[in-house]
Amino acid sequence: MTREIPPVGLFTRSAQVDAWQVSAVKPVSYEVRMCEDAFDPADGALLEPAAAGGGTRRRFVVVDADVERLHGERIRAYFAHHGVEYRMHVVRIDETVKEMATLEEIVRAVDAFSIDRRREPLIAVGGGVLLDIVGLVASLYRRGTPVVRVPTTLIGLVDAGVGVKTGVNFNGHKNRLGTYFPTSLTLLDRSFLATVDRRHIANGLAEVLKMALIKDARLFELLEAHGPDLLDSRLQGGRWGSGRVAHEVVQRAIHGMLEELQPNLWETELERIVDYGHTFSPTVEMHALPALLHGEAVCVDMALTTVMAARRGLVGETDRDRILAVMDSLELPTWNDLLEPGLLARALADTVRHRDGLQRLPLPVGIGDAMFVNDVTPAELAAAIDDLRALGTAGRRTPVLEGAA
Amino acid sequence: MTREIPPVGLFTRSAQVDAWQVSAVKPVSYEVRMCEDAFDPADGALLEPAAAGGGTRRRFVVVDADVERLHGERIRAYFAHHGVEYRMHVVRIDETVKEMATLEEIVRAVDAFSIDRRREPLIAVGGGVLLDIVGLVASLYRRGTPVVRVPTTLIGLVDAGVGVKTGVNFNGHKNRLGTYFPTSLTLLDRSFLATVDRRHIANGLAEVLKMALIKDARLFELLEAHGPDLLDSRLQGGRWGSGRVAHEVVQRAIHGMLEELQPNLWETELERIVDYGHTFSPTVEMHALPALLHGEAVCVDMALTTVMAARRGLVGETDRDRILAVMDSLELPTWNDLLEPGLLARALADTVRHRDGLQRLPLPVGIGDAMFVNDVTPAELAAAIDDLRALGTAGRRTPVLEGAA
Repeated sequence: MTREIPPVGLFTRSAQVDAWQVSAVKPVSYEVRMCEDAFDPADGALLEPAAAGGGTRRRFVVVDADVERLHGERIRAYFAHHGVEYRMHVVRIDETVKEMATLEEIVRAVDAFSIDRRREPLIAVGGGVLLDIVGLVASLYRRGTPVVRVPTTLIGLVDAGVGVKTGVNFNGHKNRLGTYFPTSLTLLDRSFLATVDRRHIANGLAEVLKMALIKDARLFELLEAHGPDLLDSRLQGGRWGSGRVAHEVVQRAIHGMLEELQPNLWETELERIVDYGHTFSPTVEMHALPALLHGEAVCVDMALTTVMAARRGLVGETDRDRILAVMDSLELPTWNDLLEPGLLARALADTVRHRDGLQRLPLPVGIGDAMFVNDVTPAELAAAIDDLRALGTAGRRTPVLEGAA
Repeated sequence: MTREIPPVGLFTRSAQVDAWQVSAVKPVSYEVRMCEDAFDPADGALLEPAAAGGGTRRRFVVVDADVERLHGERIRAYFAHHGVEYRMHVVRIDETVKEMATLEEIVRAVDAFSIDRRREPLIAVGGGVLLDIVGLVASLYRRGTPVVRVPTTLIGLVDAGVGVKTGVNFNGHKNRLGTYFPTSLTLLDRSFLATVDRRHIANGLAEVLKMALIKDARLFELLEAHGPDLLDSRLQGGRWGSGRVAHEVVQRAIHGMLEELQPNLWETELERIVDYGHTFSPTVEMHALPALLHGEAVCVDMALTTVMAARRGLVGETDRDRILAVMDSLELPTWNDLLEPGLLARALADTVRHRDGLQRLPLPVGIGDAMFVNDVTPAELAAAIDDLRALGTAGRRTPVLEGAA
């Protein structure tokens, strides 16, 4: 749970110029915990802080509509077992309604239930989009209300659920409004993945692949060796036995992510290797809505930037082809028809504004390392697009949801 | 300006339970500076960071409509003099439109102008409501964009402009959504008060009186001796010469406020004496909208709680009557017909939820000191209301804006 420590700092007044300098530090601490079954009635983790520890037995729970359909009964049974007075607010959410109106609807429901912001953390159960928006609700509600997160998708488990960013899309821009809100507990329960659509498993594996490419060669090898099995088994264990590989894949991805986040929680350092795949993808994703999922847009970005890195001699041709082959084996797109120099140049310009005037573009170096460049030109973008097209990626798979035509 | 220092902290992983604890501290520092004329072309403070220091000559400026009417020409001349490419976004704002729709309108305008979030701080010029809402825009825009604030009302100078709270009203609740966002510079230019309506000067003096009552007997004596003069002169200097008293009044109020804020910038400590006058007033203010200004609602709360303190023997009858007399001399209301036990009990219950289950109600002790109580009953509220009414406050002034009938 979040620990609260009184801030320390300085308070100085300069009589000469009639000015005051107010300084303080805000300490934050949050926990990310793997578990077997977050809604096992025998497990009280989800109700921290427990009533005896200063909490109460009241909880406002925001649940994704698909999760409610599949797991609602179990979730209700959990709260009933613990004698919790709860309200379950069910939202049908995806990137297209990750917006202020949805946030306001949740806030109205929280208001109607009424919560004690110190003793009754919100609980968010769903994918990355839901975690992002409930995180923003929590950070704004009464200027900050704790939230316990239970990701139910792979992208939630390895990305949205373990970081501190919240946000909604606005005015056609992805996450244009948001906060950094490190709070409370995230419970990582891999068993939810058993009911996740195959395409959404692949979507999460894109973020796992990102961590592999920029800092973890062993993780890349695991994906290369077991990618299709991971998809088939929904990371529940599979033919190699007992989910050992799935567990290691998830654990390595999370560990790598937290290692990068911890020293740079508020992104004061703008060179972030975890931004790899996130330079062009926000623009591509917003333009393609709802055709591309977040991880798919990230993968298209990574395919393009892998080719750029290869053109610069940072990644050998063999490794380049291994990377593209893994993307393919994970059933992720490596091409999108939105890839044209004009749009990408505009996307890069928007990113530059976000990164204090420099591109700070992470590029892979071999497999498992990365560097930053600031000198990408429109000509280089155009050439990389041509290379990627020439590699035949344009003809590859277009993701479809299971059950869709 | 805000100083950015890389956070330090801990990152631990427990292999036994497969859990990670991420800890970090966020250092913040901001400056509050008094000045003679914020828009004096000779003064570059408003353009910090200057172009040479990493800033650019582009600024998005949000200005209150009344301020623009009175000072727009001067403000435009300032930016023109410095060769700044600027967009002046004029908003007509008061408590009734301190809401998400107004925030979104400002964000759209910022998007249209396009800013570099590290080099081009927003500039907010207006009263407390405008500073609160632009502060929230800044804290949400791209997850944090610096903002330079220039309060133009007394309440902005002594309260909204020097603290770190941002917010909008939502669903009938005051500041239900907001953040703590300590950023950048506040320039305090008392000369704006020359054009402020007399009622809004009184409105700001209510927050000054609050600081006096809870921690600064000397400040109370200044208000007692010079209250009407301060109103007459709009704190511009007056018959006692050169604004010496006005300067001291503003300076003491700000110094006292910052002294209380610095060790508790994020309100982790819930016993805040600066919450004095803010227990019942949020509910009264929202119910009375638009009849009562913020400081007026605070004054009604202080009148009631002064009487409560007197009933408990914390404030003598002489001091109680001095306090009510000063409120009267500052042309502030000491009564509102919304004062009835049911509404106040509900207001107290809402405050209790905000203060972690306890009332933590600050009451004055004599003049210049305060304590907290947690045991106020509906019966005590009813008795205090009766006492206040019996003191004849109900028949006193109802504030009106100059020029109104």
